[in-house]
Amino acid sequence: MKRPDILTVNTTAATPGPHPATARTLTLAEPDTPFAVVDVHRVLRNAERLARRAERLGVVLRPHVKTAKSLDVAALLRDPSGAPCPVTVSTLAEAEAFADGGHTDLTYAVGIAPHKLPRVLALLRRGVRLRVLLDSGAQAEAVAEAARGAGLAIPTQIEIDCDGHRGGLRPEDPALTDIGRVLHEAGCLDGVLAHAGESYFATTPEARRRAAEQERDAAVTAAERLRAAGLPVPVVSVGSTPTAHAAEDLGGVTELRAGNYVFFDLVMAGLGVCRVDDLALSVVVTVIGHRPELGRILTDGGWMAMSRDRGTARQAQDQGYGLVTDLDGRLLPGLVMTDASQEHGILTAREGTDLPELPLGTRLRILPNHACATAAQHRGYHVVDSSRTGTGAPEAVAYWPRVTGW
Amino acid sequence: MKRPDILTVNTTAATPGPHPATARTLTLAEPDTPFAVVDVHRVLRNAERLARRAERLGVVLRPHVKTAKSLDVAALLRDPSGAPCPVTVSTLAEAEAFADGGHTDLTYAVGIAPHKLPRVLALLRRGVRLRVLLDSGAQAEAVAEAARGAGLAIPTQIEIDCDGHRGGLRPEDPALTDIGRVLHEAGCLDGVLAHAGESYFATTPEARRRAAEQERDAAVTAAERLRAAGLPVPVVSVGSTPTAHAAEDLGGVTELRAGNYVFFDLVMAGLGVCRVDDLALSVVVTVIGHRPELGRILTDGGWMAMSRDRGTARQAQDQGYGLVTDLDGRLLPGLVMTDASQEHGILTAREGTDLPELPLGTRLRILPNHACATAAQHRGYHVVDSSRTGTGAPEAVAYWPRVTGW
Repeated sequence: MKRPDILTVNTTAATPGPHPATARTLTLAEPDTPFAVVDVHRVLRNAERLARRAERLGVVLRPHVKTAKSLDVAALLRDPSGAPCPVTVSTLAEAEAFADGGHTDLTYAVGIAPHKLPRVLALLRRGVRLRVLLDSGAQAEAVAEAARGAGLAIPTQIEIDCDGHRGGLRPEDPALTDIGRVLHEAGCLDGVLAHAGESYFATTPEARRRAAEQERDAAVTAAERLRAAGLPVPVVSVGSTPTAHAAEDLGGVTELRAGNYVFFDLVMAGLGVCRVDDLALSVVVTVIGHRPELGRILTDGGWMAMSRDRGTARQAQDQGYGLVTDLDGRLLPGLVMTDASQEHGILTAREGTDLPELPLGTRLRILPNHACATAAQHRGYHVVDSSRTGTGAPEAVAYWPRVTGW
Repeated sequence: MKRPDILTVNTTAATPGPHPATARTLTLAEPDTPFAVVDVHRVLRNAERLARRAERLGVVLRPHVKTAKSLDVAALLRDPSGAPCPVTVSTLAEAEAFADGGHTDLTYAVGIAPHKLPRVLALLRRGVRLRVLLDSGAQAEAVAEAARGAGLAIPTQIEIDCDGHRGGLRPEDPALTDIGRVLHEAGCLDGVLAHAGESYFATTPEARRRAAEQERDAAVTAAERLRAAGLPVPVVSVGSTPTAHAAEDLGGVTELRAGNYVFFDLVMAGLGVCRVDDLALSVVVTVIGHRPELGRILTDGGWMAMSRDRGTARQAQDQGYGLVTDLDGRLLPGLVMTDASQEHGILTAREGTDLPELPLGTRLRILPNHACATAAQHRGYHVVDSSRTGTGAPEAVAYWPRVTGW
């Protein structure tokens, strides 16, 4: 993957948010805290790792942009031709923003509500190939009716349940071929899609390999059943960050989806999908108080800055609301953000560790449990590049806004 | 409290967000889901209840705007003169937005980081009385220095710890009078402030009364120690939603703070501070799928719409991610949002209850665990008035944006 010039891929620098990049270079010592930081060096490393895997496995990679919700981050994932990459989206607001940013191949991977179809049709009319997802006859009828009414095919994938996680049809469900036929007759059948949501709880490489195989098997079985019924199934889509990094054989699959991997987080590190030093998202906070008698340091970064996500609470190592680094990203061993109010963070030391001396005003970075949830608390990212060496606080080389809303 | 004309208090209708109020009246059946709804009738009832209490207890009420972050909601709380009410804020972004909206008496109730003082001074120079908070000599020195440098008093309150919840000095701390003196000599000593954060875990009225008394006692004791040292203490501020509704005697206290009470939530209902039918905030979602074999209904409202807050998990009755009502706000008994992905909600029935028939496309409202966290996931509120009777989906009489960022 060619290393892009960050400033040339900063497609949105003209519309900065509350902490805009200014003409001069900011450092992380300057913006008011709390704020979110993305390390572009780690994003590129994480992106390259999965891009190589997808290449080796012979599938198209379709990143899920729900984590970063950033055109600039997606620009780092572009294919060797330089064209905007195919993406997965979690909201129609993302679909519209990514279409505005030049992406023309999108999958909206949440079961379609019929009232959303006019927005889908509007994107299709613009020439954007937006695929929708469903798992019921009622949805298929609504899609077919809307497509006929508009005189436009709505590319539609059937969601296949591989692990009981959420929605989808089991691959053996008798309704599968009926739904496929309704879609096909309206010119809308585009493929099948499976997501191994339970793999977020798979704590060993072997368990994740099994989850990946189960995800592949469900999707391919469903595709074969549809094909056996004479229905075309061009796309067989699978993916989740844990299974995408574990799959050894994607025979029969055409594309791989993953979202979290661009940033990774402590939940993924706890599973062993990445290392802590792969985490590309952090939140800069300031020390605002000390309660040595209670073993606490207080910061101005509470759950509003981190989210309420406590995803590591059910892992072997509970990381509280996050691990703590200095402003350069070096871990402060044993220091954990163990509690949060709306605008207060509480840092404590693990047993056997002393609370470090961190005077009033010290800036720290908190590594989050769940990148998708923490990123969602912010309107954009100050971007640093940890491959650059320097003295003093890291430079923020860009400011990248996020897509918000629905 | 005079019932305001909602449209006249909608100070910001000119700058609507993603689901703007249009010239014609919308109903809750129209905007794309998920979206947040505020019932102005319940807000007014909740506001009146606490305003009456504060009047009876002989203290000024200073609502904390961190929950709604809305000038329009704050306008419902204005005092009988019609002047904007004194408010508590959790961020300087709120302070700036409320100052822009005409509020001139503000308390920023998070320990001050010295780097934020230039923004504080800028507000003071505009004639806004913005009070800051601190609990250390280092902060007091920074405030005194900034005040002297600017030739401007920075009204400052000393945070008093009443229950070990977070920050603050114990009222008997020897540092209290030293800090008071540093502030007084710079013309900055404004008062003391206590917050009974542990009262959110007080499950009986008696426990909340004790928490309120402890909060009052800590603040008044600290104020008396400062006064005994010859230091003036004009403001003695206490409050939290649970203690504000439990306090029976606020002798020695000058003002009461509370935030959550304007909306209330399932955590507060679980404690017994309010009833479920006092909850003024909800999120409208749409049914997008069914898994009858797993006892699930899927919606398009996940944790992005509700937040990751699971505050009732540690209460006697775990309410999952929220309780479910129909579009008119009538509870669907036994139905609970028990799980969430980013953009998927999973509804299940409690044991002994049947899953109701809710066809694809049905709109529901979810009552949240924690109003502050759920509201923070949205850019604004569609406003309904449940005191109006009508047929069909409730009308959205206004759209009120939120203040965001820091």
